[in-house]
Amino acid sequence: MLTTRQLEDLDAHSYQDYTSTGHGLVLLPTGATEQHGPHMPLGVDAMLARAVATAAAEDLDALVAPALSYGYKSQPRSGGGNHRPGTTSLSAQTLILQVRDVALEFFRHGIRRLVVINGHFENYQFLYEGADLAVREARAAGLDDSRVVLLSYWDFVDDRTLEAVFPEGFHGWDVEHGGVLETSLMLRLHPEKVDMSRAPSHPPAQLTPYDVLPEDPARTPSSGCLSSPAGATAERGELLLNAVRDGIVRAVSSEFGK
Amino acid sequence: MLTTRQLEDLDAHSYQDYTSTGHGLVLLPTGATEQHGPHMPLGVDAMLARAVATAAAEDLDALVAPALSYGYKSQPRSGGGNHRPGTTSLSAQTLILQVRDVALEFFRHGIRRLVVINGHFENYQFLYEGADLAVREARAAGLDDSRVVLLSYWDFVDDRTLEAVFPEGFHGWDVEHGGVLETSLMLRLHPEKVDMSRAPSHPPAQLTPYDVLPEDPARTPSSGCLSSPAGATAERGELLLNAVRDGIVRAVSSEFGK
Amino acid sequence: MLTTRQLEDLDAHSYQDYTSTGHGLVLLPTGATEQHGPHMPLGVDAMLARAVATAAAEDLDALVAPALSYGYKSQPRSGGGNHRPGTTSLSAQTLILQVRDVALEFFRHGIRRLVVINGHFENYQFLYEGADLAVREARAAGLDDSRVVLLSYWDFVDDRTLEAVFPEGFHGWDVEHGGVLETSLMLRLHPEKVDMSRAPSHPPAQLTPYDVLPEDPARTPSSGCLSSPAGATAERGELLLNAVRDGIVRAVSSEFGK
Amino acid sequence: MLTTRQLEDLDAHSYQDYTSTGHGLVLLPTGATEQHGPHMPLGVDAMLARAVATAAAEDLDALVAPALSYGYKSQPRSGGGNHRPGTTSLSAQTLILQVRDVALEFFRHGIRRLVVINGHFENYQFLYEGADLAVREARAAGLDDSRVVLLSYWDFVDDRTLEAVFPEGFHGWDVEHGGVLETSLMLRLHPEKVDMSRAPSHPPAQLTPYDVLPEDPARTPSSGCLSSPAGATAERGELLLNAVRDGIVRAVSSEFGK
Amino acid sequence: MLTTRQLEDLDAHSYQDYTSTGHGLVLLPTGATEQHGPHMPLGVDAMLARAVATAAAEDLDALVAPALSYGYKSQPRSGGGNHRPGTTSLSAQTLILQVRDVALEFFRHGIRRLVVINGHFENYQFLYEGADLAVREARAAGLDDSRVVLLSYWDFVDDRTLEAVFPEGFHGWDVEHGGVLETSLMLRLHPEKVDMSRAPSHPPAQLTPYDVLPEDPARTPSSGCLSSPAGATAERGELLLNAVRDGIVRAVSSEFGK
Amino acid sequence: MLTTRQLEDLDAHSYQDYTSTGHGLVLLPTGATEQHGPHMPLGVDAMLARAVATAAAEDLDALVAPALSYGYKSQPRSGGGNHRPGTTSLSAQTLILQVRDVALEFFRHGIRRLVVINGHFENYQFLYEGADLAVREARAAGLDDSRVVLLSYWDFVDDRTLEAVFPEGFHGWDVEHGGVLETSLMLRLHPEKVDMSRAPSHPPAQLTPYDVLPEDPARTPSSGCLSSPAGATAERGELLLNAVRDGIVRAVSSEFGK
Repeated sequence: MLTTRQLEDLDAHSYQDYTSTGHGLVLLPTGATEQHGPHMPLGVDAMLARAVATAAAEDLDALVAPALSYGYKSQPRSGGGNHRPGTTSLSAQTLILQVRDVALEFFRHGIRRLVVINGHFENYQFLYEGADLAVREARAAGLDDSRVVLLSYWDFVDDRTLEAVFPEGFHGWDVEHGGVLETSLMLRLHPEKVDMSRAPSHPPAQLTPYDVLPEDPARTPSSGCLSSPAGATAERGELLLNAVRDGIVRAVSSEFGK
Repeated sequence: MLTTRQLEDLDAHSYQDYTSTGHGLVLLPTGATEQHGPHMPLGVDAMLARAVATAAAEDLDALVAPALSYGYKSQPRSGGGNHRPGTTSLSAQTLILQVRDVALEFFRHGIRRLVVINGHFENYQFLYEGADLAVREARAAGLDDSRVVLLSYWDFVDDRTLEAVFPEGFHGWDVEHGGVLETSLMLRLHPEKVDMSRAPSHPPAQLTPYDVLPEDPARTPSSGCLSSPAGATAERGELLLNAVRDGIVRAVSSEFGK
Repeated sequence: MLTTRQLEDLDAHSYQDYTSTGHGLVLLPTGATEQHGPHMPLGVDAMLARAVATAAAEDLDALVAPALSYGYKSQPRSGGGNHRPGTTSLSAQTLILQVRDVALEFFRHGIRRLVVINGHFENYQFLYEGADLAVREARAAGLDDSRVVLLSYWDFVDDRTLEAVFPEGFHGWDVEHGGVLETSLMLRLHPEKVDMSRAPSHPPAQLTPYDVLPEDPARTPSSGCLSSPAGATAERGELLLNAVRDGIVRAVSSEFGK
Repeated sequence: MLTTRQLEDLDAHSYQDYTSTGHGLVLLPTGATEQHGPHMPLGVDAMLARAVATAAAEDLDALVAPALSYGYKSQPRSGGGNHRPGTTSLSAQTLILQVRDVALEFFRHGIRRLVVINGHFENYQFLYEGADLAVREARAAGLDDSRVVLLSYWDFVDDRTLEAVFPEGFHGWDVEHGGVLETSLMLRLHPEKVDMSRAPSHPPAQLTPYDVLPEDPARTPSSGCLSSPAGATAERGELLLNAVRDGIVRAVSSEFGK
Repeated sequence: MLTTRQLEDLDAHSYQDYTSTGHGLVLLPTGATEQHGPHMPLGVDAMLARAVATAAAEDLDALVAPALSYGYKSQPRSGGGNHRPGTTSLSAQTLILQVRDVALEFFRHGIRRLVVINGHFENYQFLYEGADLAVREARAAGLDDSRVVLLSYWDFVDDRTLEAVFPEGFHGWDVEHGGVLETSLMLRLHPEKVDMSRAPSHPPAQLTPYDVLPEDPARTPSSGCLSSPAGATAERGELLLNAVRDGIVRAVSSEFGK
Repeated sequence: MLTTRQLEDLDAHSYQDYTSTGHGLVLLPTGATEQHGPHMPLGVDAMLARAVATAAAEDLDALVAPALSYGYKSQPRSGGGNHRPGTTSLSAQTLILQVRDVALEFFRHGIRRLVVINGHFENYQFLYEGADLAVREARAAGLDDSRVVLLSYWDFVDDRTLEAVFPEGFHGWDVEHGGVLETSLMLRLHPEKVDMSRAPSHPPAQLTPYDVLPEDPARTPSSGCLSSPAGATAERGELLLNAVRDGIVRAVSSEFGK
């Protein structure tokens, strides 16, 4: 019987008992250290990925691994751009190797079912590559049943929840950086880390359908948010959290058995 | 006066004349070698990226570099998955380094304006990293005005064109692998390489909001198409090509001057 | 005026104010996810590095960056060996690149003084390489005053404290894995995460003056501790914490000015 | 029955039929984007490697994969040097990884016999390393019969052909950059891409028996050719093409069976 | 019957006879090219590692492989720092890969027992990683009994020898760079390469318990020695050599059988 | 005034005096550990590269750095193949990085003129890449006059010497592995390491104009020599050594000034 869902808080002997059942399931949250406007802290992406993982862990009888706190370079069309103060990112190869190494270690422990829960849009393809390299290497070493589910938590927000959270219309995922979705979840999960009095109010950023390198700082709002967080509430955060948790639990159970 | 827009067909002395103006602009098409159903060839992505680049080159007084013919691993949610026969992919690091190396060479030649024209969804983040590494390295070496525009050509299909091409409703970009968009463009550009008699007819794939590794072959249609190409015509291809060419010319001119 | 010492809890605008003074100082804790016996959790190394950094941050007017939660492979002569359940490690190249990337980002922000606070013995040389690569690259890019102090926190335990904590004699740093030092610090800082009723009692491990690969599991105690934590108390943890904090504050102030 | 020898023009279902016989053979042309004097285009090396592969494919019942259009850095003693305008090269690691990745994909498809047909002198050792890494990795993964033949096409020009093509004496392979051999082949295969009116006329370059880095531009002829293409004709190109095609067909048949 | 213990002096046919017994044992010395004060040459670390290996080879019926003559960057707290003239070092990744490659080759030859004998303090962790990668890769390839012993020779100096060599008290291993230990061994093994008339005389360096990057040249004695070599004699070198040789022979015999 | 030409035998203070003149010149020998038939040792390539460097050092007032004793994988067409017992090789990336690192260190010391003297055919392209990376990086760091000459020693054997050494006709450089050239040089330089009574006698190997991977052991003579060393004498070695030394001295003086 586990006394905690956080891997970092578990002792090794209890962990061994858990893995020795052969049904171990580990959730790996991946975030970023990235500006999220004047009203939210730099750690939002890792905090939300960790919170979502923790929310899903009980139903899945899973453990939550320490989050990857640094993510891939922020891009102007999803996070405001990597030139912004406070955004502290990894290059592609570093992030890929980190996921590969950590996944291989869990496979070595006897964990055969790993779920990577992404909280930073820009990470996804690099997490995919890391997971793919790990699965190939594990299978080459004879661990044939090693598997990974990879997901970004917001992809589990269903249409009904979206309508409830954005009653006046959803502007699209691309401008949801520092906006209503993330702010509502933070108000629900870490209200003390949000200062709504500093929340900016401006129309959604007009994003180009392409990227320019080096980034042009003039291209994204000076607030650092791609849309206004006005309308964010803890209640809406609760709706979002429930939708995401339930969706992930259903998906993982369906893939891996429960 | 250039006699060709294809860099590979140009001699070095003429290229030097072109670059010595200081206004050189190179378009780098990036594709993949990837299954596109029974009715289209493996080279679709590179062919379309090359054709789009060539279409835009005249208006931009640009050169088209040899395409990168191999791309990142095909993923089930955008290309059917990398397990399929014929799909011949690069790992992330290889693709990143290739873009970095080629971009740095053009900067060394005196080209300061590079446009990467992507034709394979899965490539995008790795092209971004390659371009970012090249721009950083070029600037560290004192080439301070080296710039890259990175785009995927389908992001320039405007709403009006979309309605004309999909009069019965658009199923979304995610299932547009081997479907009406790519097939129409191929019918317009390389009709001899399309065999509509072999085009599959099935409903759009039901994609999960997550990935599983290793891939589950049962997850995507056996045809290899994520939606049916029924309805594809050369005329629709013409509409798409015009929209994409015009959009890219406008965007690049706006960023780089003409 | 900073409202928190934790970078992840700070918003980007406040961070920019902080860095714009030109006197910014960032502390980067580095730990591991590694077995620490039956009485302590897997996250001990990161927890202690983070706690030490936080303790020193106020006096140094510094920020504490998110900890690197995964470290280099545990070795039998300092951590029991990497074959043990729960030990979840990175390969050398991954850890090196992670430190390099993160350090370069802080330099880009205008931070010129970075302190890496190590909590996992095996990390040290890889942290050194990562810091060295970052400093070289920063200076090649013209950031000539970028500097790093690298330390392992236990190297600041002075002789007087050592005598107070080990009144019956110190067995040496090499067997201090899961022993009195780490356990005392955890009892002082996170008592709810320690279960002294499960603390093993056995003589210090007899370590060989060499390593064998692959590791021989028979070589280290089955408890996972290299010496017994008997004698660990929160009071001794307080002595240790004070000595380490004071020593680090003095050293960093002396190197970097205050 | 294949309708084309070009892999990029083949659909995936036909490719699967081809590979499922177990006798699939793929030819991978590797070239460069490199200056070839004022009379020939930058793409000569890839064009010739592709043409040679296509010429041999019918007799071998083989498929021709998309060429690698970029090659290793041009060197003064074989290609004039990498400092020249238009020469667009890859670093060693990039080229090695590209060959490794592509070869491994063909092995995964069930292709066990791969022929790398090189058209750029400087590539050879890096192609060897890429092929060696792929074969080792394939065999470690249980694909024990995966094999590669690696060749440079000009090594199949026999003495009789050499005498016919160079009736006044052969100056050696090292100065055959942009000279009679490549120009004759281009006149035979792509006459519209050659402008003999711009062909330079100068004695063969006097090459040193060593390299200097960085390259000394004064060391090679300003034309970019290491010997004069005077004497190149389509007829001589026909002789060369026949010799090379026949030699490669014989060698590959002898190694792999036909 | 081997005619030499030096692998480089052995012919391949005799080597094959040796490995075919299945009991082959190879000793790989690893050193550095690093300043060792005004009285000793730059090659001390490789010379001593090679000499120790050669001394132990006879008793172990082992071969001595060519030494790795370049090592990891010298650090101020163990070697004076990498900024010093003459110190010629490798980066971490280079050293790691070198050990991995060489170890894998010996495993391929049928050697299953490899001893890495380190003579440069800073190398150790990188040798460990290289050996770990090689052992993992060898075992993944089915060479399940491949093993490595890794050691630094000075860890085999026993207390009795230490007392005899430092009758007035030992200052600690950290300041033993260019001091009595290395100088005594050199006087015993290569007296013609030592010039005691140039030996510096100063108190041991006061080392900080942390590192600073970039290095501060003022931090270590201008002689390049971290303690004075005064007191070094060939007789003390003989004591040290005997202790080290005997300790290594015992340890290796115990691990690997003799 | 230098007391030795061997860098490893020089003390750091004398080295600093030497480099401080600004005219320092370092010769870096690169070899291999590779079978050379039953009559010669595995270390031939490094021994000869070192001997040639030493012979040239006096006239050039140069220092000889420690040789790189391990080289790139032996290939069947120049060294018999890497499958042979005793051949102990590096992968491409390892060798490239090693040359890059070492060259950069010499540049850092103030050495601006480096000569890489190659003794193993297969190394050349990887040495080129390593030198190219180092020169680029050095120049990016402002060391604009850093230069490398790269050569293989046998390329300095002139025609007259060739006729004298092979009075009955030269079979070509490709079969000169373990043959008259290397054996004569060894008889001149290290006669005690050659056993002519074990020298094989067989016709030159019939080499194919292509490579096959994995290597086919049946393809090269079982002796390991690609041609017979019969006819090798110390006198012919003397002729070869003189030709090579004189040629290198002339070339380096001409490039670098003397």
